[in-house]
Parts: sequence; C-alpha cells; structure tokens
Amino acid sequence: MDIAASTRIPAIALTGVSPAARRKLDEVEEFVQNRCIPAETVFAQQLGVETKQRFATHHSIVEDLKEEARSRGLWNLFMAKEYCEDGAGFSNLEYALMAEQLGQSFIASECMNCSAPDTGNMEVLLKYGNLEQKKEWLQPLIDGEIRSAFLMSEPDVASSDATNIQFDIKRDGKDYILNGSKWWSSGAGDPRCELYIVMGKTDPCNPNPHRQQSVILVPSRTAGITVHRMLSVFGYDDAPHGHGHITFDNVRVPTANLVLDEGRGFEIIQGRLGPGRIHHAMRCIGVAERALNLMVSRAAEPKKKPFGKMLSQHDIVMARIARARAEIDAARLVVLNAALKIDNGDPKSAIGEIAEAKILVPEVLLRVLDDAIQLFGAAGVSQDTPLAYMWASARTMRLVDGPDEVHLLQLAKRETRRASVIRQKQARQETIMAEICQDRGITRVDPLHLGWTAQTKPRL
Amino acid sequence: MDIAASTRIPAIALTGVSPAARRKLDEVEEFVQNRCIPAETVFAQQLGVETKQRFATHHSIVEDLKEEARSRGLWNLFMAKEYCEDGAGFSNLEYALMAEQLGQSFIASECMNCSAPDTGNMEVLLKYGNLEQKKEWLQPLIDGEIRSAFLMSEPDVASSDATNIQFDIKRDGKDYILNGSKWWSSGAGDPRCELYIVMGKTDPCNPNPHRQQSVILVPSRTAGITVHRMLSVFGYDDAPHGHGHITFDNVRVPTANLVLDEGRGFEIIQGRLGPGRIHHAMRCIGVAERALNLMVSRAAEPKKKPFGKMLSQHDIVMARIARARAEIDAARLVVLNAALKIDNGDPKSAIGEIAEAKILVPEVLLRVLDDAIQLFGAAGVSQDTPLAYMWASARTMRLVDGPDEVHLLQLAKRETRRASVIRQKQARQETIMAEICQDRGITRVDPLHLGWTAQTKPRL
Amino acid sequence: MDIAASTRIPAIALTGVSPAARRKLDEVEEFVQNRCIPAETVFAQQLGVETKQRFATHHSIVEDLKEEARSRGLWNLFMAKEYCEDGAGFSNLEYALMAEQLGQSFIASECMNCSAPDTGNMEVLLKYGNLEQKKEWLQPLIDGEIRSAFLMSEPDVASSDATNIQFDIKRDGKDYILNGSKWWSSGAGDPRCELYIVMGKTDPCNPNPHRQQSVILVPSRTAGITVHRMLSVFGYDDAPHGHGHITFDNVRVPTANLVLDEGRGFEIIQGRLGPGRIHHAMRCIGVAERALNLMVSRAAEPKKKPFGKMLSQHDIVMARIARARAEIDAARLVVLNAALKIDNGDPKSAIGEIAEAKILVPEVLLRVLDDAIQLFGAAGVSQDTPLAYMWASARTMRLVDGPDEVHLLQLAKRETRRASVIRQKQARQETIMAEICQDRGITRVDPLHLGWTAQTKPRL
Amino acid sequence: MDIAASTRIPAIALTGVSPAARRKLDEVEEFVQNRCIPAETVFAQQLGVETKQRFATHHSIVEDLKEEARSRGLWNLFMAKEYCEDGAGFSNLEYALMAEQLGQSFIASECMNCSAPDTGNMEVLLKYGNLEQKKEWLQPLIDGEIRSAFLMSEPDVASSDATNIQFDIKRDGKDYILNGSKWWSSGAGDPRCELYIVMGKTDPCNPNPHRQQSVILVPSRTAGITVHRMLSVFGYDDAPHGHGHITFDNVRVPTANLVLDEGRGFEIIQGRLGPGRIHHAMRCIGVAERALNLMVSRAAEPKKKPFGKMLSQHDIVMARIARARAEIDAARLVVLNAALKIDNGDPKSAIGEIAEAKILVPEVLLRVLDDAIQLFGAAGVSQDTPLAYMWASARTMRLVDGPDEVHLLQLAKRETRRASVIRQKQARQETIMAEICQDRGITRVDPLHLGWTAQTKPRL
Repeated sequence: MDIAASTRIPAIALTGVSPAARRKLDEVEEFVQNRCIPAETVFAQQLGVETKQRFATHHSIVEDLKEEARSRGLWNLFMAKEYCEDGAGFSNLEYALMAEQLGQSFIASECMNCSAPDTGNMEVLLKYGNLEQKKEWLQPLIDGEIRSAFLMSEPDVASSDATNIQFDIKRDGKDYILNGSKWWSSGAGDPRCELYIVMGKTDPCNPNPHRQQSVILVPSRTAGITVHRMLSVFGYDDAPHGHGHITFDNVRVPTANLVLDEGRGFEIIQGRLGPGRIHHAMRCIGVAERALNLMVSRAAEPKKKPFGKMLSQHDIVMARIARARAEIDAARLVVLNAALKIDNGDPKSAIGEIAEAKILVPEVLLRVLDDAIQLFGAAGVSQDTPLAYMWASARTMRLVDGPDEVHLLQLAKRETRRASVIRQKQARQETIMAEICQDRGITRVDPLHLGWTAQTKPRL
Repeated sequence: MDIAASTRIPAIALTGVSPAARRKLDEVEEFVQNRCIPAETVFAQQLGVETKQRFATHHSIVEDLKEEARSRGLWNLFMAKEYCEDGAGFSNLEYALMAEQLGQSFIASECMNCSAPDTGNMEVLLKYGNLEQKKEWLQPLIDGEIRSAFLMSEPDVASSDATNIQFDIKRDGKDYILNGSKWWSSGAGDPRCELYIVMGKTDPCNPNPHRQQSVILVPSRTAGITVHRMLSVFGYDDAPHGHGHITFDNVRVPTANLVLDEGRGFEIIQGRLGPGRIHHAMRCIGVAERALNLMVSRAAEPKKKPFGKMLSQHDIVMARIARARAEIDAARLVVLNAALKIDNGDPKSAIGEIAEAKILVPEVLLRVLDDAIQLFGAAGVSQDTPLAYMWASARTMRLVDGPDEVHLLQLAKRETRRASVIRQKQARQETIMAEICQDRGITRVDPLHLGWTAQTKPRL
Repeated sequence: MDIAASTRIPAIALTGVSPAARRKLDEVEEFVQNRCIPAETVFAQQLGVETKQRFATHHSIVEDLKEEARSRGLWNLFMAKEYCEDGAGFSNLEYALMAEQLGQSFIASECMNCSAPDTGNMEVLLKYGNLEQKKEWLQPLIDGEIRSAFLMSEPDVASSDATNIQFDIKRDGKDYILNGSKWWSSGAGDPRCELYIVMGKTDPCNPNPHRQQSVILVPSRTAGITVHRMLSVFGYDDAPHGHGHITFDNVRVPTANLVLDEGRGFEIIQGRLGPGRIHHAMRCIGVAERALNLMVSRAAEPKKKPFGKMLSQHDIVMARIARARAEIDAARLVVLNAALKIDNGDPKSAIGEIAEAKILVPEVLLRVLDDAIQLFGAAGVSQDTPLAYMWASARTMRLVDGPDEVHLLQLAKRETRRASVIRQKQARQETIMAEICQDRGITRVDPLHLGWTAQTKPRL
Repeated sequence: MDIAASTRIPAIALTGVSPAARRKLDEVEEFVQNRCIPAETVFAQQLGVETKQRFATHHSIVEDLKEEARSRGLWNLFMAKEYCEDGAGFSNLEYALMAEQLGQSFIASECMNCSAPDTGNMEVLLKYGNLEQKKEWLQPLIDGEIRSAFLMSEPDVASSDATNIQFDIKRDGKDYILNGSKWWSSGAGDPRCELYIVMGKTDPCNPNPHRQQSVILVPSRTAGITVHRMLSVFGYDDAPHGHGHITFDNVRVPTANLVLDEGRGFEIIQGRLGPGRIHHAMRCIGVAERALNLMVSRAAEPKKKPFGKMLSQHDIVMARIARARAEIDAARLVVLNAALKIDNGDPKSAIGEIAEAKILVPEVLLRVLDDAIQLFGAAGVSQDTPLAYMWASARTMRLVDGPDEVHLLQLAKRETRRASVIRQKQARQETIMAEICQDRGITRVDPLHLGWTAQTKPRL
C-alpha cells in the first residue's frame, strides 16, 4: 500500500487536522481502495446496458457497501455537529481531505452517504427546515434510505443567474401550484429519488430581484410531474443517478412544504453552495490523483515501448507527470485553504477562496486527464480505462453551478473594488517620491532623454 | 492603505505565524510601500545611464534606507536563530511572508539586508564556515558593509548539472591555484562586492561525481581575476548588482579559505538552495501582486476608454484580473507549504514541494506580467511602467538554479518511484474485484459486447 | 444561404481549383446542408438505443441518400482518374475542399461513398490489388454495396510503431493461417462490412524490420473470426460504424488474398496514409466550421442574456469567436498546402506538410469545440447539441494513425537533419563578420564591458 | 548553404510567384545571409553604448550596404509599379516572401530601403501626395537619403481607436498651427529622420467621427517641436531608429503640407495599414525561422549534454522544434494568403485575412522565441544570442497598430454579421428534418427517454 493518506496531508494543513480526523481519513482511504474501487465493476455489471433498466435497478453491491460503511462509522462524514447531533463533526478542512479519498472511486461517495446533491440537500434541511420537514425528509436521507434532487437549472434561460429563473410557484389556498421546466436535475434518475427541492418564483414582480425566489419541497411522485428524459454527458447517462429534464404541470404541494418563508430562496441557495463546492473540488482532486496513479503505472508498463524505450524513459512523458504532480498539489492547497476559511468564518467570508477553487480545480483536472488519456493512447478514450468517463464528468465541472466565466467575473469584481485604495496608495507614493527628489536636489531625467529641438537635433 | 499584510495571510497559514511575526510583517510592508517604492526613482536617477558609472556609483539613497531599516529592526530578517544569535529568528514560513513584501520593491531586499545572493552566502558561512571565515566575511555581510557573489555557472558546459563543472582548483603548498571561467555571477557588478564564493573541482577524477567539487572563499580583488563584463537580461544590465562574466587566471588563495573539506562542495550547495528558492519564489509573488495592483488601477483609469468603455467594463480584462488573483493565491500557497515543510523538517524533506514552487511560481508570474503589459499597451513594454523590467527578471526565474525542465524531470523521477507500489495496489484491486464477481456469480460483460462469429454476424 | 463554398475558397488556393471542381464543391455543399444535415436526426432515430440493434439495423435514410447522391454525380469524389477510369478525377486539393463540406455532417461522407476507412481501402485495392482482387472487392466498394475495415492496431503493443505488430500470418500450403488480436478496427461494427484488410507479420524474423509485414484480404465472415465488442469513444459507440475488437483463431485464407507480395505490408500502409490524413483533416475543418456557426448563432440567441447582455455583447465570447475564425482559417491553409504538395509530387514528398496538418488540425478543432461547448453551457455536453459528440470524435484524432507525439518526433527528426547545414552557415557568417571587422579596424567590445581587474575594480 | 529560398516556397503559393520574383528572392536571401547578418556586429559596434551617441552616429556599414544593395537591384522591393514607375513591381505575395528574408537580419530591411515606417510613408506619398509633396519628400525617401516617421499614437488616450486622437491642427491663414503630444513615433530617433507625417484633428466637432482627422507633412526640424526622449522596449532603445516621445508647441506648417483634404486623415491611414501589416508579419516569420535555426543548431551542440545526452536526444526539445516548424509554416500561409487577397482585390477586401495574420503571427513568433530562449539557457536572455532582443521586438507586435484585443473584436464583429444567415439556415434545416420525419412516420425519441410520471416512476 502507498503510505497512508494521513501522512500525505500537506504540511501547511497539518495543524488543522485532529488525530481523530487523521484516523478516519485513513479508514476512508482503506475503504475506498479495498472495498469501493474493486466493486465498481460489479456496480457497472448490475447497471446493465439498456436505458430503462439502468435507471430502475437495485444495485445490491452499493446497498451492501452502505451497510458496511455505516457499521464502520464511515457515514455522513460531511455532517457538522453544529446542525445535527448525529453529525460526524469534522471541520470542512478535515472532511475535504476525506472527500479527496471519496473522489477516487465513482461509488464511494454514495457508499458513505456523502454524495451530491444529497449532502447539500441535507444541509438545506438541517439549516432551514422546520421540525416537520426534518422528520419527513431529513431522517430518511440521513439513513440513506432515499435520495433527492435539487431543481434549479432551466432549459430556456441563462439560469446560472438565479434572477432569470422562470419556474412559477403560485399560492392557491393551502397549496402552492407549480408550473415550469427544470433540467440538469442531477440524481433525479435514481428510482430511490423521492424528494425534489425546487427553486422557483413566488413573487416575480418583487422590485428586489433577490426576493422573488422561494424554495419548496416536492415529493417526486406528485401528480403533474413528468421526468421526460435524462441528459447525457459526452455519451454517458450517469445512471442510475442521471440528470433529469422534468416538467411541472399544475403540480399541487401543501404550503407547509415551503422552506423558510416566501422570498428567501436566494438566501437558501447561497447558504447551500459554499461547502458543496469544496466537496466537488476535493473529489476532483481525488480523481486527478487516481489519473496520475494511472499515468505513473502506465509509464512503467513493460509492454509499451514506443521507439524501443519505456514511456517513463521519454522526458515528454515525465514532464507531464511532474506537471500533474505540481498542479494537483497546488490545486489541493487552494481548496483546503478555502475549506479552512469557511471553518474560521462562514461560506460568505470565503467567497473569494471558494471561487478560486471553483475556477482552478477543473482546469487542472482536465489537463491531467487529457495527458493521461494521451498516455494510454486509444485505450484512454474507451471503456478500457476510467479516464474517458472521468474526463466527461470533469468537463461538466466548468459548467455546473455557473460556467467559469461567471465565477471569473465575480472574482474580478471583488478584486477591482480595491481600485480606489490602490490608486490612493499610488498617489501617495508619487508624493513621497517627489519630496525625496526635492530634498536631495534630484531632477528626474529619463534614461533615454534626448531633448532635441529644431536647433539641437543632430545632423550626420 | 490597503488592509495590512498580516490580515491577508492565507487562512491555512495563519496558525504558523506568531504574533511577533505578524507585527514585523506589517512593519516590513509599511517600510516597503512608504520608504522603498518611493525611493526607486531616486535610486534610478543615482544610477545614471552610462555603463561604467552604473557599476561604480555610491547609492546614498540605499545606504540611508539601510540605516533606517536597521534602526527599525528590519534587518537580516531571513536569519534563523539556529545559526546566529543575532538572527531575527523567524521561521521559513514567517520570513516567506515578509519576502513577498520585499518583492514588491526593486530595492527593498537590499535595504533590509535580505538580498540574494548575500542571504544564501551568509547561510553558507553560518552553516559551514569556520570561526576565522565567519569573522572575516560573515560579520561585514551581516552588517551590510560588503556584498558577495556565488560563482557557480560556467559558459561552456551545461552547468545546471553540477557534475559538469570544469573550474579548476589545484592545491599548491599552502595555496590553491584557481583557473577557469564563471558567468552569471550575480552581484559581482557591485563595487562593494568583496567576496566570491567559488565552486570548482579539486578532485575531477573522483569516481563519485558528487565528491569532486569544493567551495572556496576568494576575495574579489585577488590578482588574476578579471571581471570582463556584465551579462544583460533582455536589455537590462541590473546595475549595480550585475551578472558577471569572470575569469580566473592562476589565482592564488590560501588553503584556509576552503569551506569545510575538499570534496564537500556538492553538499554545501545542496544546503544552500532550499530556503533560497523559497525567498526567490515569494519575492516573485510580491512582484505579481504589484503587477496585479497596477492592472486593477489601470482598469479603473478614466482616461483609457477603448470603444467608449473603461477597461474594467470589458469582461476580457476582468477575466484576466480574476485569473491573476486566483493563480497568484494558488502559487503563494505552494510556496508557503514548502516553507513550512522546511520548518518542520529540513530542505531535503521538502525537495518535492520546493521543486513545485520553483516550477509553478515563475509561470504564474510571467502570465500575470504579460497580461498586465497588454493592459497598459505600449507603455507596458517601456520605461514608463516597471512591468517590462519585472517581466525580464521574471523570465530568468525559469532558468536560474537550473531550467524548468531539470526540475520537472527530477520531480517526475520522485513521482515515478511510486510505480511499483501503485501497480501492486492495482493488482490487488483486480484480485478483490474478481473475488466479488465470483461470490456474486457475476460474469463481466463489456457494455458494447457483440460476440459476433462467422455464423452470428448479422446480415441486413 | 451563406455565400457558396466556392466563393469562400482561400485566395491562395483559388488557382488550383478548376471551374468543374468549384461547381461540384457547391453541389456537395448544397447536398450536405439541405439533404444530409436534416437527415441526421432520422438516422439517429433509425439507429435506436439498444446496442445489438444499433449494430444490425438497415438505415434506409442513408441508402436513399446514397442513391440520390449517386444520381447527382456526388459519388466517389475522392477517387483519382489515375487509378480508376470511373474516378471523379479531382485533385487532392479539390477533393480536400469537398471533404471539408462532407465533414459538416455526420452522415455525408457515407452518403457520397467517401467515408473512411473505405476510401483508403479502395485506394489500396486500386493501387496494389490484382485484377481478381479488384473484381471481387473493389467493385462492390465502389458501388457502395459493402463496407470494409482496415485491421492494424493491436491491444497489447505500441502498434503505432508498425514494427511492433504481432499478428501472425503463417503459410500453410495454398492458405495462410491467421492468428492474433486486432482492435480499433473502425467500420467493423457495420453489418455490411464484408472485407477486412489485415496487416500482420509473415516474416517476423526478417532482419529488416520493414519487410516483416504483409497485408492480406479477409472476408469478414470467415470461420475463426470473432468480433467481440465495439470500443467506445467517451460514451459513444459510433454505431453502426463501430470500432471493433476482433480475434483471429486459426483463420484460413487462400494465398491469393495476399496483396502484392509477402513483406510489402509496410510499403502498402505508407502509400495508404497520405491522402487519408488530408481527408480526415479537412473533415475536421468542416466540423470546426459547423461548430463556429453554432457559436455565432448562439451568441445571437435573444433568450440567453447572462448579466443582461446577449452573449455577442460579451467581449470574452467575441474574442473566442474571432480566435476560432483565425485558427480554423490557418489550419485549412495547412491542409490545402499539404494536399497540393501531394498533387505536385507524391505523398512521400509531402510527408512534412502532412505531419503538420495531422498535428495542428485536431488541436484547433478541439479548442474551437471546447469554446463552443462552454458557450452552450450544459446543453453543450449533452445530446441537445452535436458538440459533445463532435468533441469526442475529434479527441481521437490526436491518437489515430499514431499519437501526436509520434508525429512531432518524426517532424523534428526531419527538421534537425538540417543541423549541420545550419551550423556551417553560421560558421561562414562568423568568418565574414570577422573579416569585415578586421577590414574596418573594428574591435568588438561587449556593450556591458567592464574589464575590471584586481587593480582597476572600483571602490566607493 | 541551405536550399535556396525559392525552393522553399509553400506549394500552394508557387503559382503566384513569377520566375523573376523567385530569382530576386534568392538574391535577397543571399544578400541577407552573407552581407547583412555578418554586418550586424559591425553595426552594433558602430552604435556604441552611450545614449546620445547611439542616436547621432553615422553607420557607415549600413550606408555601404545600401549602396551595394542598390547596385544589385535590391532596392525598394516593396514598391508597386502601380504608383511609381521606378517600383520593383512585385506583387504583395512576392514581396511578402522577400520580406521574410529581410526579417532574418536586424539591418536588412534598411539596407534594401524596405524598412518601416518609411515603406508605409512612401506609400502614403505615392497614393495621396501631390506633385510638390512627392518631389520634396518622396524622392529622397526613394533614394534612401532621408528617413521618416508616422506620428499617430498619443500618450494620454486610447489612441488605437483613432477617433480618440487629440492632436490639434488649427488653420491660421496660410499655415496650420500644430499642438499636442505624440509617442511611439518609430524612426524619430534617427538623425536622418527629416519628415514627420502627422495625424491630428482639424475638425474635432465634426459629427462624423471619421471625418475629424487630417494628415499633414511636417519637417522634423520645424521650430516648436521637441523630441523629448526615446521609449525603451524591455531595456532596448532600438537605436538609431528609436521610438520618439515628441511634443508640438505652436508648430507652424504651410497649408500646402496637408495631404489630400481636411477630414481625410482616416481614409489615409486605412489605406496605409494593409500592406504594412503583411510586411511586419512576414518579417516576423523570418525572425521565427532564424530562431528555429538557432534551436536546431543548439540541439546539435556537442558541448551541451544535460544528463549525458545531447539536447536533440531529449524528446521534450524535439517536440518544441517540431511544433515551431509546424506553427511557423501555418503562420506563413496565413500571411501569404492575405497578401494574395490584397493582390486580387484591395486591402479592404482582405481585412479579415490581414487581421488573422496580425493576431496569429506574433503569438507563434513569441512562442518559438520563448522556446528558443529556454533551449539556450541563460545565454538566451543575454547579449550572447539575438533571441532576447528578438523577443522584445516581437512582444511589441501584439501592441503596435492596436493591441490584439482590438483586432480580435473587429474580426469577431465581421464573423457575427453572419448570425442571421446562419440562423435562417438552421431553421430551414429544422423544417426539412421535420418533413422527412413526417414523411417516414418517424417520431423523435430522445435516446435517454424515460417519460416517467407519478404513476410510472419505478420503485425498487
């Protein structure tokens, strides 16, 4: 076995990780490597090939691993004690390190009840749900008995800007009536998905564009809902999880299902995003590490000797391995720093750090995966390595929760707020400089001063 | 003023920085911003334009600032207590943060007696020098009275691999006789440079290629030495510091000038490099921050309105600012992590982390500077901004102490040492997987299985 | 309609394109845009979703379009008159322009009987086949009645280097007996694929590594052949075409099926590759143009207004569109130049130009597609645009016929052959320079000359 | 000698180059390689090191080479017969190939009287000057007796957008009175620079922003003009050429000096830019070829053996050489195509192609130079190779005549004009597709169709 994960924690993160978290981290790694990764093939076989079947199958291997994980105390690791006494009680930093290990296997997150979007949805219920809502929905989620989806994106608008959302939530007596289309509802393909947490507009005319939205809980089997199809990702259906395209046609839900009050939808999704992005990002780091391991292994494959030399003897290959190592390590530090910033304050204080992780991590991961694919040749794009599927998933990371460009512009806005302070500082430095020159009787002369006039311009 | 440097320490580094270091950090920042940066123009004026003069001038502004810095306790900040009771006693992590501030001004490092290569040279004397050597050379360096150079690179060989060095050190009674050529001897242009620490071969036939080298102290005014010229960096001469091209023609030096014993030169340079690379890297981060500040300021310049919009209203500009912010922050974390790894162990244990910093930081810096130049238009390449000079200096960072490629290959070698462990792990996972399949009676079928034979291949 | 393709021929290529070819080019474009692209959806529907069905379906839409294309004279456009009197008789340059149009639709190449690998296979038969072989296999290929595959790559070796091939062809009386594994046998999934052209070794011990290989014709329904499965490209199966993984277990084929003589396999594949790479590359250009059209269209979509502005009002989007335009145009010129070089000489004389096209075109295409995907958001990775599938196919272009790295190294070898000529020229220039200096009494002085000695080194 | 330039003309450009042009091309190459490049060192020595001297020196080597070039018929090669009977009469395509050769040496363009900005200025006079103006200024320029500068950029505004220009030209009787600042006036440092062609505003209030500007001829020694200083480019002063910063303080010029009429300044600069950009771009290609030659030579240097292998045995080096080869060849085709487009029509018809060359060529050149620098190690950034200076000059190419971003946006605007045509085409394809489906009774079903409702959603 490679040295344990706890011994590979970056030096700078070490003091933030308790001995208990280190032990747990190693247990997670051990479970992922020896239980989950070997079970991936079984999982794939149980899925089968026919679309309808893939979204309607009991995956006994995952259920067995869930039981095993729970019995080992590898369950709901993401959950803070703050909101839930059953919570594992790890800090964001500590859980981030575990999420990296989870990311190494396609099925590990679910096996330990730590998979998106359920984690984020549980957090919404923990933070904002009332007692009734918690009892009905949170408990079965905590127990891994049901799954859930968060319905936010819409096909017809640029919904990465939540103010553009069109989904209609209209009050009618003791009910709300819901109408509209949602897509990229991840997890909605799973037959065990019983709960939709839906973002829509209760007050589309509110002059404050951030008070128009509300969030409501909708049982997935409510009349009027149609799950039309799943969306594919570069040919993959992501079954049984899936990314649903769903319409609501006069769907009735009791008013008691509203989370918090009308108009607080924006606030709820804001609170949901921070830690979720950390989880995503660290799973990506785990994927990148798995890809790097594959590269290292391939480079040492004795059968593959283009031009008579093993791949590890080609420095073009070695340079890519080194670059992967360096960039993954850098990306990890960015995420861990963001996680710790959340731990020290709250997601809002860490908004810049989270944006950095959101932007940089998928870039690094995609580059590493692309190099890994290239190293494996045609096998790299096929079903014979996990790389192609990893790449396809990674590519969506530049789009989910808003495309890169949105995050870049928001980060830039934060940065340019400093403009006037910087310009004042520059002006002050200019003043001091002028004073020093004056004090010392120095006249500033440009190094390429000529000072030619009509009279003094030289002639040859 | 921007919020103080101590409040901008990355969350993940915070616990490693003592309150005293935070206070010192802010003092350093204040001195750099209000004393050093405004003095840069004065320094440039004192340098003048004529080559011989530029390398033979008394820069009273720097000497005045040195005195001021020393009186404020901003002196030799890099120096550990471990080797020197006068040392400032900061950890590598703490000093790294200060080095970032030093990097913001071209003259700040020297003003606080923290400039390369003197810092590294002092460390050599501190660690390896005997009492006599320390008394003669270390003390005036510590007091900022003289400067020094480290003579390592040679023009005729690929000397980034120290085993290729050809400089000859031959014993002759109580003297050594030195012959050979050195170049890129940084600092040798300064008239105050009194000491050359020279790497050469005392035992070129030693079968161990790492025992052939020795390091010797040479007063710069010894007969037989010629400083032919300075090397330019793009069009800059880096006066008065300079990068010397120097020849030794039967230069005699007493044997007492040898550092440690014959054959230990390799060991000495190894010990010298780690922290030095951290200092360089963090100064680069400081340069990048200054460049980013210039970008932010320029984007808010009301006079510059291409196509009728301020630069900050062009999202192509904003995306670059955001990318700079994210990449600088990532690079900083990489360096700080390497610094802390040194603090926790020694430079050798941190060799991978240091290599990552060495590779990534100049890349980020060059990209930020290039974007900044583009934002300033033609002013960016000229003497009207510091950007062009910063870029030229940054470009050398991909070459000094060995080109990127050397560090990439060394990092890759470390990484590929894991190959057999990884391949064993993969084999074990395969075995477990096969067992699970067998236990559950699962036959693996490829998702695109056809199994056509001559008999079963379909006909239309 | 956009202005006709013939009016968009690059200025520099114009003189090489006959009026007849220009007319044909516009007919091809018209057929692709108005007949093929609209039929793609029908084709997809006829394919269905179930794997076995997808590789065993009669696609009436394609057969209908083939008939229509043939009746319009849009048939076998790639075929030179040189080898075949039925050939369309266009030059490589002319056909390259048509291939670009074909590339815009997934089904157009097949509809006009110009799809790989059949085109290359027909060329093999045209150039190297004997009369019997032509009669039996070439004619039905020319008529579009059957399809074919070229079996070259092997799963267990780095077969991009053909000397590594292990497939065994052993003579046994009037037969050859074939044993071995092949994969990435593109086209082998099609039920109409009746012919395998197989590369193997008849003489594995021949001291000349390029005389060990032979090429043999194998009917796809011969006993002993198993088509195990298709290989996926990311999540796509490329049905009905497919990329087969095939084994040969004592497969018997008459000796008459050998192409040319034993040991000439290498020569045959060499002759096959040149024009084929041009076709691939130009189809890639067509794909890129389709993607760029999608970008332009999306940027003008009134419904998509992130931050209140249409995408075309964001300069980050516009810069990508411009870059796509410029890079596609550059890539096209590279391919057309290579095509013309083949026309002027032969594929061998154009080997450098072909390698350039092979390296540059997929890079450009992948970048354009990636930007297009980003512009479409999540729709870009899904089945709702053709972009994800285009990207997956394009990614294989960096691997088929050898990975990029192989082509880069071969191109570099050609380039470095010039080293001695260049070094001689440099030496001669040095000599002339020295003479001029002498003649004019000029002493070379370094611009940063100091010439300090122990005596003259300045003191402050 | 390398094979002659005429034999290296890209296949696709060949038919456009007359036999006479091919011969001339080889003569140019021979003169550049054997006369100009060897003279560069002499030129540098004659320049000296002291700023004032560098801008006031008689460079006898250049004057001698000019005489020699003229006597060999290597003079004013850029000049079309169309405007001048003394013109060399080559097409833009033909001259572009010669410009590539000129680009290989720093002094070749001037030696053959083909250097910017004089070529562009001569074209302005040829096209728009009246007889008097031609007699006074054009003739001595044609004879290489004087030099000239074009004064366009201004320090205080974003003058890459000519509507922002502030330079004031006010009529006062028979004179114009000129006031304002100009910078980056390239060529103004040369003591032989006698003519400024100045762009300013005669009618700043004209509602048509493109009718406010006029162009006027100003003798450089007119009273009221001060040449303050030269601007540096990464530390280089580009002496004796120089980039001037010039102010006009009530400078009086006769009205007869106006070119064309008031308000036609915009038209004049438009006509000037096209061919000039081709010349610049092709010289850049020449620079890139020289850099590639240096790389190839260095890779074969027997003294440089990092890790015991020559540089050409490191595939990371070879890949860079190959990439340089491919990208330079692609860039050249882009420029030649633009040149031919101008030949076939006029600069305006080639505006897209010229923009592509403007954007792509400097990028390629900078990448090649950066790789070359890296290959030469520290020598690459110093005065010991021409690479650093070449890089510095190349970097300005992304800024002169407007930064990249301006050209990208303009190219994008041209491209997005096609949006409505494309969207109509897409709509038509949709219609046809729907018709085919209807005709064939095909219902479109999504490949991942599920169609779950509350009733049919599966339960496990």
